[in-house]
Amino acid sequence: MKTQMTYAKEGTFTREMELAIQNEEIDKKEFLQKVAEGKIVIPANKNRKRDKYFAIGDGTYVKINVNLGVSEACPNFDLEHQKLEIAKNFDVESVMDLSSGLDASNFRKYILQNYDFIVGTVPVYQVASRHDDITKVDSKEFIEEIEKQAEEGVDFFTIHAGITRRTIERFEKNERLLKIVSRGGSLLYKWMMANEKENPLYEHFDEILKICKKHDVTISLGDSLRPGAVADATDALQIEELINLGELTKMAWKEDVQVMIEGPGHMRANEIAANMVIQKRLCHGAPFYVLGPLTTDIAAGYDHISGAMGALIAALNGADFLCYVTPAEHLRLPSLEDVKEGIVAFKIAAHSANIAKGFKKPLEKDIEMSVARRDLDWEKMVSFSVDPEKAREYRSSFSSDTCSMCGKLCAVKNSRDEVIVL
Amino acid sequence: MKTQMTYAKEGTFTREMELAIQNEEIDKKEFLQKVAEGKIVIPANKNRKRDKYFAIGDGTYVKINVNLGVSEACPNFDLEHQKLEIAKNFDVESVMDLSSGLDASNFRKYILQNYDFIVGTVPVYQVASRHDDITKVDSKEFIEEIEKQAEEGVDFFTIHAGITRRTIERFEKNERLLKIVSRGGSLLYKWMMANEKENPLYEHFDEILKICKKHDVTISLGDSLRPGAVADATDALQIEELINLGELTKMAWKEDVQVMIEGPGHMRANEIAANMVIQKRLCHGAPFYVLGPLTTDIAAGYDHISGAMGALIAALNGADFLCYVTPAEHLRLPSLEDVKEGIVAFKIAAHSANIAKGFKKPLEKDIEMSVARRDLDWEKMVSFSVDPEKAREYRSSFSSDTCSMCGKLCAVKNSRDEVIVL
Repeated sequence: MKTQMTYAKEGTFTREMELAIQNEEIDKKEFLQKVAEGKIVIPANKNRKRDKYFAIGDGTYVKINVNLGVSEACPNFDLEHQKLEIAKNFDVESVMDLSSGLDASNFRKYILQNYDFIVGTVPVYQVASRHDDITKVDSKEFIEEIEKQAEEGVDFFTIHAGITRRTIERFEKNERLLKIVSRGGSLLYKWMMANEKENPLYEHFDEILKICKKHDVTISLGDSLRPGAVADATDALQIEELINLGELTKMAWKEDVQVMIEGPGHMRANEIAANMVIQKRLCHGAPFYVLGPLTTDIAAGYDHISGAMGALIAALNGADFLCYVTPAEHLRLPSLEDVKEGIVAFKIAAHSANIAKGFKKPLEKDIEMSVARRDLDWEKMVSFSVDPEKAREYRSSFSSDTCSMCGKLCAVKNSRDEVIVL
Repeated sequence: MKTQMTYAKEGTFTREMELAIQNEEIDKKEFLQKVAEGKIVIPANKNRKRDKYFAIGDGTYVKINVNLGVSEACPNFDLEHQKLEIAKNFDVESVMDLSSGLDASNFRKYILQNYDFIVGTVPVYQVASRHDDITKVDSKEFIEEIEKQAEEGVDFFTIHAGITRRTIERFEKNERLLKIVSRGGSLLYKWMMANEKENPLYEHFDEILKICKKHDVTISLGDSLRPGAVADATDALQIEELINLGELTKMAWKEDVQVMIEGPGHMRANEIAANMVIQKRLCHGAPFYVLGPLTTDIAAGYDHISGAMGALIAALNGADFLCYVTPAEHLRLPSLEDVKEGIVAFKIAAHSANIAKGFKKPLEKDIEMSVARRDLDWEKMVSFSVDPEKAREYRSSFSSDTCSMCGKLCAVKNSRDEVIVL
């Protein structure tokens, strides 16, 4: 019944830890202490052995997550398989399988068996898929689904335990443009209202902890009340829920269950830094997993850009784990191209944050690229790019050794001293 | 011989000012004072009447600029005409005509005659285009070109007057990965080294001021030593040049010549805020016109995303005017699609900054969009998007009134209270 947190508290350095920090720059002792304190998590379900593990949290590189999955409307396994390959090719650390519908569990098993990603799910989705009316579900079924997926080897669960009856009471005095935009949160809200009962994930949180402890599943405490409009951001509802998440975090840590906190959503850029500080304080330093945030509501079709902007600002101010957003957000299910665009935007955000945070190995990539630019070495410039395939395609239309944009105005050539001597 | 700055100092509210702030939220008195102090510019050459004018600087909306132009390698007028139309359709405020080659002046005249954009140029490019060897150019020719373009009606010039012999001496003690990446700066550097003379734009700055005063051309003081690699950012060379630009700003203001300052470049995200503060201090509050900055060197093919991220952080911290970057940056001349992608990314950055800075009218757009989302009004969601054409194309593959991504998991529907009553 030992989790990575238990081992860290005991001072034991596990295989998972070893693999997780082999490419990191954090000191081993500091790392162990932060895992023990809950400031770093290593999502690593005991029932699935992987060749790669990743650490998420303070002092480690910022990581990214890719959402995908089949659904009743789109039960296209082949498409989702290709998305997994794209994520793998771009060295993404984590995928969340947000599948719903009856085929969901097959798809989940496929990922768990075939990939080394951290794998996260939202168990309530599958419960909802089995029923025409979520409000008729017995609260036990939520727990049973969590147990089933824990046994299968899922590394982290989004658990929407932070929306309580007390929180809901605040709706009255705190109007919103968009009340609830979290799918899991809205399902639980509907259940709570219809049954006039407390949130089952909150009420049975101790049972969930037992399961997560047994299999070492990291809990990602979902933000049911994350703002879905910039005008709703940082309001009483969001902050009240964050207080609840902080209390739940302490309960989990008492059982050595690893915890991350999920964050906004939509948010004006000036509020992001404060939100990171508040989350870290209220949730006692638990790693922060943000969705975007999108810095405006109007970027539909380009939400990967708005989201990556917000994600970079979040990461500069303490966010540890970035959930990608694709250009399809708010409009349709993402195509393969959308998935690639989303991944690249968030790779750029995470990398930009990592070099800004003073990490050395990521910065070496920028230095290599700039040396290639100085040397006008196009082959290297292409291969050092975040997406060499696109860079090559763009470059292939030109043959000169200077960029055709500048021609004889090439600054690199004009500022070379040997040019002056001639 | 009165410029907008002269009028502001006299307390006269001009037609250009009237048009410039008709959609802004700044108080008229405050506006006039800031124009008088140089904190806001209204690029408005007297020789060209336009129907639209724009203010750039403290207390006004963040604006964007689009670079385009023909060149010897690509003398495709038709393509560049289409780029102008794209910029117009997206309500871009400013274009810089970076044309080089012998057709450059025809293209410039075409823009000046047919569009209401603020139009900027870099006169040294055209001088360089006329000669096989820039080092053989008589310094008078630079001034003559500036005069000619001022008479034609160009609203602002990038003048690389900040790179001086004293600055160049610092190269020895301050190594860089990429010495000079500014095209104009590198041409002047080459000229200075070959002729063993001072920068002609620095030496004859008083003559340039006379011309700019006469026609009311705003000077955009170019940053010849802007970092072209994150590892070079905020170094002695960049800061030394900024000191020079601050001194030149004061000289210009003495003659009532309006001034903007150009900024980086490539820069790690954590350095951006400090750069904005330093620029505003050293350049006495003059508006800051930034190129990106790109938050990493490795995003070739996606530099519009890296640049828009940096631009947003810059704008949150004082940058007033954002020069767009396209996905083609560092790789090829931008296609029409590249231009559109660049514009949209920077529109999102500017808009995100404007709502973060507390402006009300821009925020109304976000509120309208979120109300449409609440109402599941797809037609409005599409039309309120930053690029309705793309949003419509994405949306058109679906017909249900909920997004097919969620189906019965639709949070908007599940959190509606009427749903619960049923």
